[in-house]
Parts: sequence; C-alpha cells; structure tokens
Amino acid sequence: MTDERTLGEFEIIERFFAPLAAGAPGAYGLKNDAATLALAPGQELVVTTDLMVEGIDYLTGEEPALVARRLLRINLSDLAAMGARPLGYLVGLALPRGVGAAWFESFAGGLARDQATFSLDLLGGDISATDGPSVLSLTALGTVRTGTALTRGGAKVGDAVYVSGSIGDAALGLAALKGGLKVLSEEGRAALIARYRLPEPRVALGQALVGLVHAALDVSDGLIADLGHIGEVSGVGARIEAARVPLSAPARSALYVGAASFETVLTGGDDYELLFTAPAEADGKIGDAARALGVAITRIGSVEASPGVVVRDERGQPMEFRTTGYRHF
Amino acid sequence: MTDERTLGEFEIIERFFAPLAAGAPGAYGLKNDAATLALAPGQELVVTTDLMVEGIDYLTGEEPALVARRLLRINLSDLAAMGARPLGYLVGLALPRGVGAAWFESFAGGLARDQATFSLDLLGGDISATDGPSVLSLTALGTVRTGTALTRGGAKVGDAVYVSGSIGDAALGLAALKGGLKVLSEEGRAALIARYRLPEPRVALGQALVGLVHAALDVSDGLIADLGHIGEVSGVGARIEAARVPLSAPARSALYVGAASFETVLTGGDDYELLFTAPAEADGKIGDAARALGVAITRIGSVEASPGVVVRDERGQPMEFRTTGYRHF
Repeated sequence: MTDERTLGEFEIIERFFAPLAAGAPGAYGLKNDAATLALAPGQELVVTTDLMVEGIDYLTGEEPALVARRLLRINLSDLAAMGARPLGYLVGLALPRGVGAAWFESFAGGLARDQATFSLDLLGGDISATDGPSVLSLTALGTVRTGTALTRGGAKVGDAVYVSGSIGDAALGLAALKGGLKVLSEEGRAALIARYRLPEPRVALGQALVGLVHAALDVSDGLIADLGHIGEVSGVGARIEAARVPLSAPARSALYVGAASFETVLTGGDDYELLFTAPAEADGKIGDAARALGVAITRIGSVEASPGVVVRDERGQPMEFRTTGYRHF
Repeated sequence: MTDERTLGEFEIIERFFAPLAAGAPGAYGLKNDAATLALAPGQELVVTTDLMVEGIDYLTGEEPALVARRLLRINLSDLAAMGARPLGYLVGLALPRGVGAAWFESFAGGLARDQATFSLDLLGGDISATDGPSVLSLTALGTVRTGTALTRGGAKVGDAVYVSGSIGDAALGLAALKGGLKVLSEEGRAALIARYRLPEPRVALGQALVGLVHAALDVSDGLIADLGHIGEVSGVGARIEAARVPLSAPARSALYVGAASFETVLTGGDDYELLFTAPAEADGKIGDAARALGVAITRIGSVEASPGVVVRDERGQPMEFRTTGYRHF
C-alpha cells in the first residue's frame, strides 16, 4: 500500500500518466527528456498552450477529472479554431504538496476519457510543488495540411458571420455554479453548469471548415470581443443581429425571467464555440458540413467595412454594453 | 504613459511578447488561437515542457530576466539531451495581479536575449492571474532527423560514460545564494551562483552526438540519479570513478575546505550537463566533436551489467550516499 504522503514524482508519472502515453511511441513511456513526433508529409504542426489557475480559471473543489477534461478541451478548442487534427499534448502541474493518489487518479482518468474521445496521446509533462493555488498548464499539438490553417486574419467585407452551438451557456453556468439563477429548473441549471464545466471543442467542424471560410476563432473572451478580434486582425468590422444569436433553452429562460442579461450572454465568454466568416457562395457547403457532423451552426451577422462590432436589436438599433469581454489579467 | 495597474493581457502580449514572435511567421504576431510550424522534410518534432514555481524552483526576488532565461534554458537542455535543434517555444505564466510593466520588460528581455543565442522564436503563450506564488511554464519545440533522437534507452554493457562541463556547481551555487559557502572567495561564490542561475544547455553538443552515442540525458536530478535513469531504461547498471567527476575550481575549493560534501556534488542536480554513454570506437569522434565546439567532456566511468550506480573512491571501494537525487514533488 502506498502512503499518499510518500507519492513521489516518478511514482506519480509511472502510475497515473505513463498509461496515457502508451499510444504514442515517441513519448517513450514518459521516461525521456522530451518526446518525438513525426508529421505526415504535407502536414504542418499546430501548437497552442493554455493554463488554468485554481480559484481564478476554475473553482476550488471541482472534481479533478472535470478540471482535467476542461483543461484539455479549451486547448483542443484552439486547435479546432485553426482547423487542426489533434495529435498529442503535454501537461505542466504545480500542485500543493498534500495532493494524493485520489486526486491524480481522478485527474488522469479525466484525461484518459477525453484523449480517447478526441484521438490524441499524452507526450510529456512536468510536476512541481507550490505553496499557493494549483496551476495547470497544457500544450496541445495538432496538424493541418501545410498552408491551410484557419486564422483570424482573412475576414472580408460581405462575408457572413457564423457561430456554432449556442452562446452564453458557460457564463450562465458559472453564475449557477456560484449559486445564482435559482429561478431556473434544476435541469436547466444543471445543463448550463455542464456547459461551463465541459466545453465541447468543435474539433471535427474546424477541420471541415478548412478551405471554406475566410476567418475563424473559438469564442473564449465573449462573442463580441472575439468577433472584434477577427475584425481587428482582418482590418474590418462586423454587425450582429441580436435576435439571431443562438441560445439554449435554459439560457432563453434565464433571459425571459430577467435572471440574466443579454450582455452576459454576449460578453461572458468560455463558450468555446467556433465563430467564423465566409463568403456567400460557401454557405451551402458549410451547412452540409455542419449537418453531416450534427453540429448546429447559425448565421448571426455580416462583415462590414467600418471597424468595431455592432449588435443590432430587432428594430435595427445598435445596442450598448458596458463591457465587451473577459479580462484575463 | 501606462499605469501599471491597468496593464491588460492584450497590451502585455502586444508590447512585451509579440516582438519575440516577430521571426516566426506561423506565430501570427501572437494574434491567433494557435501557431503553425512547418518541419523540413525528413525531420521529426521534439517537444518538452518544464515549469518553475516561485519559492520552490527559483528564489523569490530573483531578477525576472534571469528567471526567464533559466526557464528557457532548462527546456533547451531537454532538447539538447535528445540531439534536437531548437525551433520555437510557448510560455504559460500565472502571475500575481500586482505584476507591472517593469517585470514584463525584464522577463521578455531575458527571453529575447536567449532566443537570439539559441536561435528560436516565441510561438504562443497564455497569461493568468494567481493569488499564490508565480508559476512559469514553458514548452520547447525542436527537430531531429527522423529516427535519430538520442534517448535514455540505448546504453550497452561496456560503453564508456561521459559528462560535459563540470558537476555540482549549481547545487553549490544555490547553497551560496542562500548565504552558505562563505569560506570561498567572492569570485568563487559568484561563479557558482551564476552556474545555478544560468545553466548552459549543451544544444550544439547534443546535436553533434547524434549517431555517436548509445544513450543520453541532461543532468537535472543529480549525476547519480540520472545515470540511474539511463541504467533503468536501458536495463543495465553503471560504475563511476569518483576522482574522474569533473569539478570546477570553486567546487574543488569548497570540497577541500569541507564547506560542501561530495554527496551534494553528485546528487544536488540542476547541472544541465549532458550525460551519455558510447562504445569505445566512438571515443575519438566524440572527443573531436567536443573540441570543435569548445565544450569539455570527461569520461567518468563505464556501463556494467549489474543494475544500479556504483561510485568508487580512489581505492576502488564503493562510496555510500544517503540520497541519490532531487525529489521534485
């Protein structure tokens, strides 16, 4: 029997993480200084990193398996935004010294489940102790055919603006998790909380959009802020029709009873849906691709010449918001 | 003028980090969700990640530029141990909210200096706030000709064991930084402290050893522990002649006056020197490569059939140590 207090780095790696690397020969069972990874001819690497801090980016006390899956998924969402196919990932964990086998078992179990879902393997990592809150970092690697990666920079005036799934659920889910939105049904609150805890990275949709769209990203800062990012990098602006923004049933309920604001929906962030712009002639193929994958997409507006993002209400009037998106730091 | 309290994530990225990505077209000025990176034909990727926690892996109050360079260098040392050529890196920073422009300017300045020295570019990153000590993570990417990466797993009985540079300086430097080793000259203490603060990743040597050596790694846990790692993965053991372990002049002074123990030298870690094993017939070419690069290498022992690492004193007797290496967690 292992006393949890005596769990050393090597035992943690061997017992909980090496099994996650079993499918990647270049991970060498996590026994090397680094991993090797071969790309297929004609492919280039896509790489991204995101970190989550306990108490800031996730709530203290969340189940480690869920935290792990969320960490992996927000990185996969970045790969999806580039149209990349996931290949592998590395994790860096700064954890309090008291963390024991149960934590690692849950955390690694979450990773195992999602790496199977999204077809990638653990390639490496590092663990250190901290006297503060846990800090979890993850770097995800994927591939695209060379030169075809989706970027934020290609939006053109006249493009339609699309978004996948529904917007605002995660921000409302976080509010529910903190004890808000009590007026909603238990089912409704649970659905929103689940959307916050476990975003659905649109990995297959992102790959399907390669060659069809002009610009893309995943909504993490908030719909308005992120559409603003596309606009800034592309040198354009955009208009959104408020009534077209896709909302889930519980999000609509929360708005109807006044328990949440439309501003929270549009600026709360953490949606991890794909936001993209495409020329009119691509509309049919984009719709076909989304239907084939069973992913809802909605045309919510258009790319305009004048800079900035304008949200118009049902009378065509621009709406005003106090903030545009989440401030990370 | 920017009020430091209002420094937002986007401004930090634009002002301090985007310039570090200017040489990498696939970093898109850090304005994308992820970076793209093309590999030359016949090359495969090598990837590693390491994190440093304030107060654990580096001392609170250290100059941010030095912390940044150390973080980059310990990752480059992992690439060196695989024989890889550095290409790029990503950083993840969890920082207290009070951190202002001066910190970022120093930190980014350190990265700028070392990425020029070692020929790689920033590809991406993430910043979050933390209520605890800073946690800095870095993922480094490099390439090797497909199938030629050095690993820990190929050591063969009869191989010679070599190490680059000198061993023990970093552990003694850390002791000096904490106020110890007062008996040494100021120059000696400063030299040891510099070795702790700024390890010298043996990037060029690692690449030169490809095809010549059977097994390699970089010494981070301590010479004995890391030679043990080669032995475990390769299914062999090793013998070291204590008198052959290369020591710097201040390290020798510290031992001679009894201010430090030989055990600290062999087990203290953080050396970031290359430790490798090679067949006798490669000795000439290895020596030529090291001389061409101006890097000292020393033959310190041999690979044996019986498992474990034995350190023999000058009379040929095995030496006993209480510990074998640094325990990370």
